[in-house]
Formats: sequence, C-alpha cells, structure tokens
Amino acid sequence: MPNEERLTRMRRAMASERLDALVLRLPENVLLLSGFWPMIGATYLVFPVDGEPHCIVPACYEAEASGSLWKMTASYYRYGVLGANPDAAVLEILSSIARSNRWARVGFEGSFEVAAPPWNTAEVLVPAAQTRKLLDTVFQGADLVDVTALLQSQRRTKTPYEIDKLRFASEISSIGLKSFEDLVAPGITGVELAAAVERDIMVYGTLKHGTFRARAFAQVAVGPEETAVGYRPNEVSTARKLESGDVALLELGVVVDGYWADRTRVRVAGTPTEEQLKIFNIVRDAQESAVKAIHAGAKASSVDEAARRVIRGAGYAEWFPHITGHGLGFRYHESSPLLSPSSSEVLEEGVLTSVEPGIYRKPSGGFRLEDDIIVTKDGAEVLGPYPMSLA
Amino acid sequence: MPNEERLTRMRRAMASERLDALVLRLPENVLLLSGFWPMIGATYLVFPVDGEPHCIVPACYEAEASGSLWKMTASYYRYGVLGANPDAAVLEILSSIARSNRWARVGFEGSFEVAAPPWNTAEVLVPAAQTRKLLDTVFQGADLVDVTALLQSQRRTKTPYEIDKLRFASEISSIGLKSFEDLVAPGITGVELAAAVERDIMVYGTLKHGTFRARAFAQVAVGPEETAVGYRPNEVSTARKLESGDVALLELGVVVDGYWADRTRVRVAGTPTEEQLKIFNIVRDAQESAVKAIHAGAKASSVDEAARRVIRGAGYAEWFPHITGHGLGFRYHESSPLLSPSSSEVLEEGVLTSVEPGIYRKPSGGFRLEDDIIVTKDGAEVLGPYPMSLA
Repeated sequence: MPNEERLTRMRRAMASERLDALVLRLPENVLLLSGFWPMIGATYLVFPVDGEPHCIVPACYEAEASGSLWKMTASYYRYGVLGANPDAAVLEILSSIARSNRWARVGFEGSFEVAAPPWNTAEVLVPAAQTRKLLDTVFQGADLVDVTALLQSQRRTKTPYEIDKLRFASEISSIGLKSFEDLVAPGITGVELAAAVERDIMVYGTLKHGTFRARAFAQVAVGPEETAVGYRPNEVSTARKLESGDVALLELGVVVDGYWADRTRVRVAGTPTEEQLKIFNIVRDAQESAVKAIHAGAKASSVDEAARRVIRGAGYAEWFPHITGHGLGFRYHESSPLLSPSSSEVLEEGVLTSVEPGIYRKPSGGFRLEDDIIVTKDGAEVLGPYPMSLA
Repeated sequence: MPNEERLTRMRRAMASERLDALVLRLPENVLLLSGFWPMIGATYLVFPVDGEPHCIVPACYEAEASGSLWKMTASYYRYGVLGANPDAAVLEILSSIARSNRWARVGFEGSFEVAAPPWNTAEVLVPAAQTRKLLDTVFQGADLVDVTALLQSQRRTKTPYEIDKLRFASEISSIGLKSFEDLVAPGITGVELAAAVERDIMVYGTLKHGTFRARAFAQVAVGPEETAVGYRPNEVSTARKLESGDVALLELGVVVDGYWADRTRVRVAGTPTEEQLKIFNIVRDAQESAVKAIHAGAKASSVDEAARRVIRGAGYAEWFPHITGHGLGFRYHESSPLLSPSSSEVLEEGVLTSVEPGIYRKPSGGFRLEDDIIVTKDGAEVLGPYPMSLA
C-alpha cells in the first residue's frame, strides 16, 4: 500500500518549485518516495511531478525490491557480476527516460553532507562528481536543481503511514532498552552491554510483525570518566568493567527497514548515591516537562526551555551543554526540527523529534534520557514507550 | 610512531602532480595520513607537500585524537554544544592556514562515491556541495584538484606499518570465524549466527593487544534459496532456522581502528551431502590455487584464472559469476586491484587483495571462501590465517 499522502505532498512541493522530476540515490530518499529501502547505494529513483515513478535497481536485489516498491516502473541492471557494466546500464536507462520526457527542471541531491547508511552499513555509496556528471549527460539542456533543502523540509513532517513505521522501530528499540536494564551490574563491560543490546534487537527484532531488516548501533559509556563526555555525538564502548556505583549510559540508534529510532537510558550498577538519584530525577523531570510542552503550534525554543528550566532551577545548567532534541526518522538525525534556545521553529502535527536532556559531571557521571516524540494535534505521542529507572 | 613511508610516498606523489596540499575529510583518508581514525566525518586534515600537517578535530574528541595523531599541529573546534558554530570555526582555521601558505594547487576528495563509514556507522558525514563551497572560499585563486584517483592509487600498495594493522584486523576477524564454526548447527537462525559473530568480535576484539574500537558487520545467509544469491554485494540474515544439511554462508566485514578485513566461510549444519562436499573442495582448491598464484609481478588476471580454471575444470564455471578478488584495507572494498579476467593490473609487493571464489546453485546452496592476502616479494601472506572446513 503506497504512502499516498507522502506522494501527494511531494508532488505539490515540486509543483511549487516548478520541478519536473527528481533523481534520487540516497537510500533514505529512495525509501521516502518508493517504499524500497536499498541494500547498498546503487538504486536510482526517478520521481516525476506527473506520471509514474521509475526505480532502477541492481538485478541481484530484484526479489526484495519487487516485494516492497509501490506502484511504479522498475528496471533491473546487472551489478557485481562478470561482464556487467553498471554505469553504462544506468546511463542507458536514465537516457531513455530523459528522451521520453524532455524535462526542463530536474532535482538532485547536491548537499547531503549527512546521510544514513544503506542496509549494508559497512560501506556507503554516495553521490559525488560522477553522479553529477551522469545527470549532466542525461539531462542535457535541463536545469539541474539541488533539492536537498526541499527534501529535508518535506521530511520534517511525517505522514500517518510513516508514523506507523517509526512507532514500530521505536518499539523494537525497546527490546534493547530492556536488555540493557536487565544486564547493568557490577562486573559487566561497556562492550558486553553494547553487544548484547545489538544482538537482542537483531535477533528478536527481525521478523517481529514482519520486519525484514533490523539493526542496532549501541554505544555504552561506563563510569564517571567515560560518561562525563556522554554529551558527544557518539560514545565509545570499552572493555572497562562496571564497578559498584558506576553509571552506564546507553546511546542507541536503531534502524528497522529504513526507519530510525534514537533512545538513551542510564543505569547505575548496584546502589546509586543520593547525588546520582537526585541528578537522575532532575533529568527525568526535565525530559517529562519537555514532552508535556509539545503540541501542534508549540515553539521549539519553548520545548527546549521546558527542559532547561528544570535543570537550571536545580543548579545544573552548566552541565547540560547541548540542545534538547532533534528531528529524525529517515535518518538517525534529521536537520529539522532542532529543540534549542535559539530555534525559531514552530512544531506542527506530524513532526518527529527526540527529547534528550542530560547532565554530565564527575564524580556522579553522565545522565541522559531520550525518547522519540510525534507532535499530535492535542499534544505528543512517545513512540515505543519504555520506563525510565536508574537501578 | 608515524608511518614515515606512507608520508614520504604521498609527498612524492603530490610533488609529481605539483600539488601543494591536500584537504581531506573522509575518515579513511584522514586515517591514512594522520594516524587518527575519526569518530564521525567532522575532522579535516590539511596535508601539505612540505611542512607540518594540520588536523582540525571536534573538541569533544580531543582525548582520542591527541592520543593517536602523528606529529602535526592540531586545532580543536567546538562541536555539538550550545553556542558553537562549527562551520564558522572550521572556516576560520582553514582560512588562517590558507593565508599563511598561499598554495597554488590544492587537492580535495571530489569523486569518492564509495566510502567507508566513520566509527559511528549509524550516520555518515561526507563532503558534498558545502565542502566544495568552503574550499572555494578558503583557497580563492588556487586550483582545486580532485585527487580521488591519486589517493586510491596510493592506497593500493600498503606500507609495513599498515600491513601490521591489517594483519591484526584479520586476526580479530578470525574470532568471528571461530564463533561461526562453533555455532552452525540445525535449529540456529541466520540472525542468531550473525549477531553472535558481531558480539564476539566486539567483546573479545576490543582491547585485544591495545585495540580501541572493533566492530563487525556479519551477514549470514542460510539454506539453498538464500545462499544461491550469496554472490550479491551483501547477504540478508533472516530468522529462518537452519535445517540439517543446510548451508550457512558468513560474509564478514570487520573494522579495527579503521583497518578492514573481509572474510567468508561456509558450513553445513549436520552432515553435508556428497555434492556439497565436492563443491566445497572445488572452491577450496580454487581459493588455494589463486593464493598460490600470487607473487610480486603476477598479473591480476592470472590470479583470477588460477581460481577460475579449477572451477571451470570441475564443470561449475557458470555458477561462479563474479570476480576472484578486490583490494581493501582502508575500506571494505578498495578500487584496486581487481582480480578479474579482464584486468590489466600487475600485483606489486604490498598490494592487499581478497581471494574469494564461489559456486552458487540450488539445491546444494552457495559456497564461497575468502581470505585477505598481502603480496610479498616471494609470494603471498594470508592475513589472520584460519582453517576452512565444511562441517
């Protein structure tokens, strides 16, 4: 069942920019407009403002693509086998599409400097000079328009179809939150915790209600030194063993058939100190206050302030150095919204944002709590809700 | 201890192209010339043909960078925290470097359409239009030269320093080969096998002889249907249970502090059929023949033929649809060498290549065996040797 609302919205946005077609290669954008989440970055989607889209897929993935593509033309080209010339094959198919359409304005992905990995996360295929040259050759005489900003702004607000997929990804991420909760104890290492979370999501997430591909990226910082820099874009799980009273902070990215969840939980091994309990409660209050401040029409800066006020009021403002949340969905992080003090954005229904305040200081350690929230008409829905507890 | 041979060779190559400096952002190239493997793609390396390199690193990674960077200037800029303006900070540092040097020709990464993920594989930062604009602004009046081909050809031949790192990565990958061997049995699923291999490499690989970051990307196809398409660029691990007599094929990418291994093993759950044993032995013979054909001065096409001859002689030529091997090291796959029938390349000492013939057909299933091989003066060294057995 295609995501008709997404297709309609995108065509409306294209019409207002006088775009005749988009040619997309990043897996996150191919998924957005075709229903197929590519294995590697070698699938091309031609999406016209009028008429049927055309997806060009490596032949070795025909079974997977044909099972998930919405209604459109599909061409399969030989890839990765002897005698194949993938570049020539794609050129020929694209040229044939261009000849039958004679478009004047064609959009391409020129400025995606942040990208989700394809399913095969060990290697990414991204558009660079050769793709630009290919498009120049194929669409001679047309204006090639960088539609990065258009795609990002369209992706900001999710459709009901996408919200179902994202809710499901968050539910699967909760499998990992539970494993983490069950396993944090003196003696276990950061890498053991991270590996267990990743394992459980892959094993129990795959085929849960029809999931085809589920993968987790778990990062577990342990102890005061590691968690005190827990505000970084990523943690490094180490072989350091948790000692009694140590904090363990789980930063968890999860992708389920192309849809992302981003969660954080924090636990103490053994018995928390009073200071740790106090900080945990402040962070939880801040997180809950921000979630409560979310509704259609709310200012992003007000949601940030709802979290920040709690932390400031408790005297920990200087140890909360980052924004309160960010967009996500087709990627671990999307460019919009940003829940920050300086944001001028307003949240509409269907916007997806993380809410993740934190306090990071020695000797207590770093504390952050993060869920993913959909803005609804009347308030907010926490996706894949899972309890927050320290020990 | 810097990799002096690499630095000398790169400077010689730059001089012959009259390049004054390189500005690099892809983690695989930053690692190549600085010793630091970035966490995300936000580190810039300025590498001049004369004088000291300069690395520009997000401040939150100062501890890791300063512990691994070779002798060079390092600048740290605020990233991911409130009040930071990373773009402006990088612009200012780069501009200051440009002003003091007034270079005429500066190299950049314009055509890397295949890239290794950074350590944080859940999201990649790659150079696109904004990076190009930044370089245009900073190096006004200079020629900006796309050095993708130069970097790829320089990376083809590894230095002794790099071979040590790559040998170690392959040794760590063997941890996963053993886990796979131990676990293949009727009743286990592809995702369970993949997750166990990934877990063991992360847990036992981290801190083994000083490893800081080890991660595996394990893909396990099981049974005749899944493994018959095992020649694809990636497998999809599923929740299908192995039945007695089923093949399990492990495709395994491993990254250890930025250096890659690429291995494949195949096992049968329970007792193999005569046909399975026969095919396995043919593939093993083909793999060994190709490895034996490797030495400094050997043609890449002759090595391919050494494997292909065995498979052709046994009557299975049409079920070996792919090349015999590819370069790797700073990435899961590098552009050179390619061990294929049509290759005109000659292998020199220090070249790293996979050797991975396979036969894929129903009902026996898909079989492939893969190791990574360094070309030596007198022959070949298999990195991280590990036995090949079917059951």
